[in-house]
Amino acid sequence: MSPLSPDARHAMFTGARTANTFDDTPVTDAELTRIWELARWAPTAANSQPLRVLFVRAGEGRERLVKHMDEGNRAKTGSAPAVAVLAADTRFHEHIPAVLPYKPQLKDTFAGNDALRSGTASFNATLQAGYFILAVRAEGLAAGPMGGFDAAGMDAEFFPDGRFHSILVVNIGHPGKDAWRPRLPRLAHDDVVSWA
Amino acid sequence: MSPLSPDARHAMFTGARTANTFDDTPVTDAELTRIWELARWAPTAANSQPLRVLFVRAGEGRERLVKHMDEGNRAKTGSAPAVAVLAADTRFHEHIPAVLPYKPQLKDTFAGNDALRSGTASFNATLQAGYFILAVRAEGLAAGPMGGFDAAGMDAEFFPDGRFHSILVVNIGHPGKDAWRPRLPRLAHDDVVSWA
Repeated sequence: MSPLSPDARHAMFTGARTANTFDDTPVTDAELTRIWELARWAPTAANSQPLRVLFVRAGEGRERLVKHMDEGNRAKTGSAPAVAVLAADTRFHEHIPAVLPYKPQLKDTFAGNDALRSGTASFNATLQAGYFILAVRAEGLAAGPMGGFDAAGMDAEFFPDGRFHSILVVNIGHPGKDAWRPRLPRLAHDDVVSWA
Repeated sequence: MSPLSPDARHAMFTGARTANTFDDTPVTDAELTRIWELARWAPTAANSQPLRVLFVRAGEGRERLVKHMDEGNRAKTGSAPAVAVLAADTRFHEHIPAVLPYKPQLKDTFAGNDALRSGTASFNATLQAGYFILAVRAEGLAAGPMGGFDAAGMDAEFFPDGRFHSILVVNIGHPGKDAWRPRLPRLAHDDVVSWA
């Protein structure tokens, strides 16, 4: 039996849409913190939790961000009440003794294997980006995820020591006027699902 | 305001755990299809939807699967009522004219740029894997995601034409005896979240 009410299923999955405009209702720091407080509990490999979240409010920080967005994403990113830059921590393994106390030596395994460390960081931060988008919705807010930005420029701007690599930018707010484009079709069951 | 009840927040995020054992309650094909029917609606770049799902029931298919799992994952994967192999479709762009009808020419952009196509496939399929795990929970089932398997062996076994690349294996069922290990700590707010 689903633990979600029909309204919750609609808000989280079946009726949720990527918002392209936002109204003036502010998004508070407490709301943004609550998004992270939900998303943080979903699972990652070896409890690695490589996702890092930079919340960018309106003002000077937003101007620094918008210039790295693709042209078509600038207006909406400039006007969203809040924006999250999601990034992967390439040195997440430094936290392993704290987050995986029964196997602290995994820190050294990651330290000695760049390909494993980098693959674990990207894959698990991206899984967590999926959780994060659904957590935005779970807080009653609309999410507008965007991959269209200059990642190298964004990293140089906000993460100049090279440790974090930005993977996704998510506008967060309450939907405004004409927020929704017509819904795009999803693939048919048999194009996606098979059985063995 | 959150569209989720306190029970739903608990079931989806704050109280959900990775199950390591499963009881004998079957998981029906209808339940598995409903997981996909929820997860399919969450967003992907250019509506690309590269995730593919192979549901493996008990029996001969499961035997073929278990032998590619890491040693420590074999017992639980063998005994789960259902298992999903999640994969990225490296030729997802063939569906672009159907899923992105206002920009069908993006198919050719992806066809001519292997790095862009492969990056889009992995990143978005992984985001969708995050949605999928939460959709399992939204159907009232426990998910047990595992990265510990021989991906090349799995692909040769189930996707021999080379088109799909497996990214994650997820056990699905109702929690059994001693299903939960002690909960591992999550990173502190200030280790993850920053503000600009």
